[in-house]
Amino acid sequence: MELWFTEKYSQNCGLTINVKNEIYSERTKYQDIAFFDSYDFGRFFTLDGYMMVNEKDEFIYHEMITHVPLAVNPQIKKVLVIGGGDGGTIRELSRYEHIELIHHVEIDERVVELCKQYLPQTACKLDDERVEAFYTDGVEFVKGKENFYDLILVDSTDPIGPGEGLFTKEFYRNCYKALNENGILVNQHESPYFPTNAKEMKKAHAKLKGIFEICKVYQFHMPTYASGHWLFGFASKKLDPIKDHKKDEWEKFNIETKYYNSLLHEGAFALPNYVIDLLEEASEEDMK
Amino acid sequence: MELWFTEKYSQNCGLTINVKNEIYSERTKYQDIAFFDSYDFGRFFTLDGYMMVNEKDEFIYHEMITHVPLAVNPQIKKVLVIGGGDGGTIRELSRYEHIELIHHVEIDERVVELCKQYLPQTACKLDDERVEAFYTDGVEFVKGKENFYDLILVDSTDPIGPGEGLFTKEFYRNCYKALNENGILVNQHESPYFPTNAKEMKKAHAKLKGIFEICKVYQFHMPTYASGHWLFGFASKKLDPIKDHKKDEWEKFNIETKYYNSLLHEGAFALPNYVIDLLEEASEEDMK
Repeated sequence: MELWFTEKYSQNCGLTINVKNEIYSERTKYQDIAFFDSYDFGRFFTLDGYMMVNEKDEFIYHEMITHVPLAVNPQIKKVLVIGGGDGGTIRELSRYEHIELIHHVEIDERVVELCKQYLPQTACKLDDERVEAFYTDGVEFVKGKENFYDLILVDSTDPIGPGEGLFTKEFYRNCYKALNENGILVNQHESPYFPTNAKEMKKAHAKLKGIFEICKVYQFHMPTYASGHWLFGFASKKLDPIKDHKKDEWEKFNIETKYYNSLLHEGAFALPNYVIDLLEEASEEDMK
Repeated sequence: MELWFTEKYSQNCGLTINVKNEIYSERTKYQDIAFFDSYDFGRFFTLDGYMMVNEKDEFIYHEMITHVPLAVNPQIKKVLVIGGGDGGTIRELSRYEHIELIHHVEIDERVVELCKQYLPQTACKLDDERVEAFYTDGVEFVKGKENFYDLILVDSTDPIGPGEGLFTKEFYRNCYKALNENGILVNQHESPYFPTNAKEMKKAHAKLKGIFEICKVYQFHMPTYASGHWLFGFASKKLDPIKDHKKDEWEKFNIETKYYNSLLHEGAFALPNYVIDLLEEASEEDMK
């Protein structure tokens, strides 16, 4: 028997993957989760049918969400991670010895438990002593927090289902308050290529632009996400990802990476014209 | 009826595309060619079952193969294009008024004829008066040419079938001879992600490194090619794509682009560590 998993990028296009077998699946309180073993991508898991993380290319996403802000402010000590129940983002953060505290807010405890069981490649540092886990809604968690975090990483799903609130203006405004004066917010920022993703990219950018002083977008090659052209948003109160790039300080950490490096840090912010145009167009209209 | 075209990226993975209808197909002397209309990508054509060009993202490939070398040597006047029967590369070249001569060598005249008929978006400038067409094997064509071209663009298929000779050491050596002292060779350089493509990427790089003084690789986001992470090789006798980048001169051409820009030019050469490692590993061994 051949078992093919197909992730639709749109109604009329998708990536299809030959799967060895389904390892486990469950309907949690929030979503459907399933783990598979595949020939090309090793083990992967899906939420509501969308591939979240696979063993072959998760390093790209997790290095890019983490090391970019740490190379802009190498003094980051207090971090809030929202989402990212697979643990890959926390694994990368845990490599910085000077980070003191990682608050991990994940709405769905079952994602964390199951990733610990089935995906140790990413979940291996979720028990780091600096990590404090909160199984609650990220939107609620940030409310009322003030001037505390150096960095907030929004490692969310697409803005449908449980991740939807993490793309709202109210949430971004509360993140702004929760950050201190050097604060940086990095968020999963969708993709410019397929219309559905591009629409969400514009909406997120329009909202962030209205709140943060500095608001940039950077790209990376993520083969298993729609179009392979994926983005993170970089929003901050005063630190600019290029002008304040602390290349030398970051390199002193001696963190071995498979994707990220200092030259690529700057290259990642060099967006194609059509992406720049879409982001510049992003306006109040897109927020609706 | 739903008609889905699937391009296999490996035995166990592929991109699947809902097709409105097949427009035309033919077995030429060299290969199978077929044209389709699709919902997401407009019209596209395949050679031996692999998507070559589609209306939605062809601009990315064609801008990146052309404008990068033209921004390193804005004096380029004599160009040789090998392959690229769809005409997209020549369309981009034709935008430079100062280019005097474009030799277009395409082994399969039917590709050119059919693209003129079915894909005018790319084929629209194949009759530019500066273009001289040669329907012959590129490998044979460059033999014996000496110190003539400013630029050779190898716009080839993968190194199987009619494109195979365009990935040989002998061919690259003849290209070297055919170029003048400022000469640049840009070639389709495969991709680092899936093993089959990565192997060909290493082979091409190993061969070029043995021949050209300067030998770099640059990347772009090409959603409909395997993994979306695609590469061009930049090989030259003395011009370095970064040190000799003539940003200001190129910008004076006032060429409107949808993907390429001067900042992205430099960013495109900032490769991920795993790609750098693969390229550095590329050795005599890989040429076998």
